Amino acid sequence: MPTPADRLKELGIELPVAPQPMASYVPTRTVPIGGGRALVFVAGQVPVVDGQVRHVGRVPDDVDLEEAREAARICALNILAQVEATAGLERVEQVASVSGFVRSASGFSEQPQVINAASDLLVEVLGEAGRHSRAAVGVAELPRGVSVEIAAVFVVSQA
Amino acid sequence: MPTPADRLKELGIELPVAPQPMASYVPTRTVPIGGGRALVFVAGQVPVVDGQVRHVGRVPDDVDLEEAREAARICALNILAQVEATAGLERVEQVASVSGFVRSASGFSEQPQVINAASDLLVEVLGEAGRHSRAAVGVAELPRGVSVEIAAVFVVSQA
Amino acid sequence: MPTPADRLKELGIELPVAPQPMASYVPTRTVPIGGGRALVFVAGQVPVVDGQVRHVGRVPDDVDLEEAREAARICALNILAQVEATAGLERVEQVASVSGFVRSASGFSEQPQVINAASDLLVEVLGEAGRHSRAAVGVAELPRGVSVEIAAVFVVSQA
Repeated sequence: MPTPADRLKELGIELPVAPQPMASYVPTRTVPIGGGRALVFVAGQVPVVDGQVRHVGRVPDDVDLEEAREAARICALNILAQVEATAGLERVEQVASVSGFVRSASGFSEQPQVINAASDLLVEVLGEAGRHSRAAVGVAELPRGVSVEIAAVFVVSQA
Repeated sequence: MPTPADRLKELGIELPVAPQPMASYVPTRTVPIGGGRALVFVAGQVPVVDGQVRHVGRVPDDVDLEEAREAARICALNILAQVEATAGLERVEQVASVSGFVRSASGFSEQPQVINAASDLLVEVLGEAGRHSRAAVGVAELPRGVSVEIAAVFVVSQA
Repeated sequence: MPTPADRLKELGIELPVAPQPMASYVPTRTVPIGGGRALVFVAGQVPVVDGQVRHVGRVPDDVDLEEAREAARICALNILAQVEATAGLERVEQVASVSGFVRSASGFSEQPQVINAASDLLVEVLGEAGRHSRAAVGVAELPRGVSVEIAAVFVVSQA
């Protein structure tokens, strides 16, 4: 069975360095739950690439659907980078939940199509383990004006 | 002590078929936490009845408080349907948390009254086990324009 | 090593009485996860002081950044009060996650600076155990018009 590293290579994706938090918090918190497993709470990730925010604005007025999907995909890459840094992607047993926030212009209701770009990437990289429960909502504003923010809870096996 | 099935019957409620996800995710994820118990992460449920979205619009401009409460109640029924499908309601030990999102017109601050309709139903059906922690917020937009979306985390016993 | 009680004293903070929920839910739910530990899901806390809501309005139009930070700090104090009431702050092992909602005027993107006031207080009172993962978003409306609402998940040791 292919590992997450195999799948990333096949997809031609190089995982970014896990972004530093933008403020007074830590990017992940690992909570053991017995049986050699732990929950990993991943802080809300935004579309930051090499330390620069991308895809700033409301969907679809400032940022169209395709660009918003790219923003969501970057959020998912940053989530994967955080889990790689704290636990290693090969230890992921499940993705428990994904919370997706889309900065939405009045009347925009395609939050699911935006967050799908993140959900699909998680499954492409993690296989069956990447399938997750999810909530997607449209919010008025997001930190630094970004168009998408995504938080997640993973389940990992511990050494 | 009455079972959830007893209470549903007494309330005259027939649980709907658990709705399919609207996008690239799964409706529930079950995470064992030792002691024969598991967390069940339930994806955000919207007021879908027989595959059709209901109660579309902002509260209270397009959807009044009573209608929004009905929307919240349908979300809760769909949450119960998801837990019934994945674990069985008789296995529910606790409802850990409920996250309620109300699509709110400017100045609307009665999100708690809306989400109460969901909270009350959980307790009517599950008894003491149905009592939960909760966050209720007002968001600008929701998928497919619905007025309410609710996600939850349950604790169930495993066979 | 100083206890949370020591730190509160040193900071000159008297923990408030844990606020009653505003609606049909409970302020905390404790879920055992094995190894003598439990998750504590803390319901969304708002800036209530002695039963009165404070800091009502949108940030920064009605409530400026400094006032919003004070609102966030009160939310954090109320979270600490809830955990003190249900488990005792000296039993806190980790703060797994913080979800911060800031009622934001159009174009406001400093949600992290607002929620930092809560995050910093958690670390001041709980030390290293208080460090947490976090999501901060800007929402349109909040219950009773408050400017900030914060929910959290803690990990505590059980007697």
